[in-house]
Amino acid sequence: MNTITNRTFDEISVGDRCERHHTVTEQDLILFAAVSGDHNPLHLDAAYAATTQFKGQIAHGMFTGALISAALAMDLPGPGTIYLGQNLSFRKPVMLGDELTVVLEVASKHDSKPVVTLNCTVTNQDGKKVATGEATVMAPVEKMTVEAPALPAISVG
Amino acid sequence: MNTITNRTFDEISVGDRCERHHTVTEQDLILFAAVSGDHNPLHLDAAYAATTQFKGQIAHGMFTGALISAALAMDLPGPGTIYLGQNLSFRKPVMLGDELTVVLEVASKHDSKPVVTLNCTVTNQDGKKVATGEATVMAPVEKMTVEAPALPAISVG
Repeated sequence: MNTITNRTFDEISVGDRCERHHTVTEQDLILFAAVSGDHNPLHLDAAYAATTQFKGQIAHGMFTGALISAALAMDLPGPGTIYLGQNLSFRKPVMLGDELTVVLEVASKHDSKPVVTLNCTVTNQDGKKVATGEATVMAPVEKMTVEAPALPAISVG
Repeated sequence: MNTITNRTFDEISVGDRCERHHTVTEQDLILFAAVSGDHNPLHLDAAYAATTQFKGQIAHGMFTGALISAALAMDLPGPGTIYLGQNLSFRKPVMLGDELTVVLEVASKHDSKPVVTLNCTVTNQDGKKVATGEATVMAPVEKMTVEAPALPAISVG
């Protein structure tokens, strides 16, 4: 079992950043369809998707939002973070197989509350921004390390 | 196999709405953890979650974003929609077992482009708003009905 350790409000400085990487798989598209309820063939049917302007299967737009939310929850600030809000612009389609990089960077710290805003950028393997936005969180004030449970086996098909 | 039919820009009026319902299951928490990479025990470990201020397992904040995105993609406007942006405020925790209602309502139509904004509200079984926001989409201009593929079987554990 892995452990994850947070960065408290006092430990966070403007400009702090974290980076996560993820390659989009067929399984991601199926699981996101299952968990969201969005079964559009653009995400799930290779033959159909090939006939569209995108020329292939694309990830659900909010999949990039899910990756950003995980970076907030796992890395910066990490455990104990309370997610208050998120703005997102979806700038380019994310294709099956794209190698995504999620970067969070602390943009501001509130004067009187442990509230932090972070600039969020998701880029693909060509360095193109596919999604950008700003997260607002209540950062943890207590240092903590928690165990991140391993997931049960998930099988598809 | 189900089919889904869109509402085109011309067919959409300010005030149009759609509504979807979803009860949060343990499988949702596991699949969202898998697809996002957020393995915080608050979502996955009942014993740990019971010791927190939430007194039980909560859904990932962005899970409500995923439900909103599915309502846009499946219902209003539906197939052919291009997701441009989303603002979200996470107002209350979503607990395992909560019965969520997602409502989208068209707030504005652009004068010269097929761009539509929709107010997005997710409420729980007590009528409390758990997430609110605004979506901006490029609505489809061509009427279409597409087949929504059935998902392969997903088994957990």
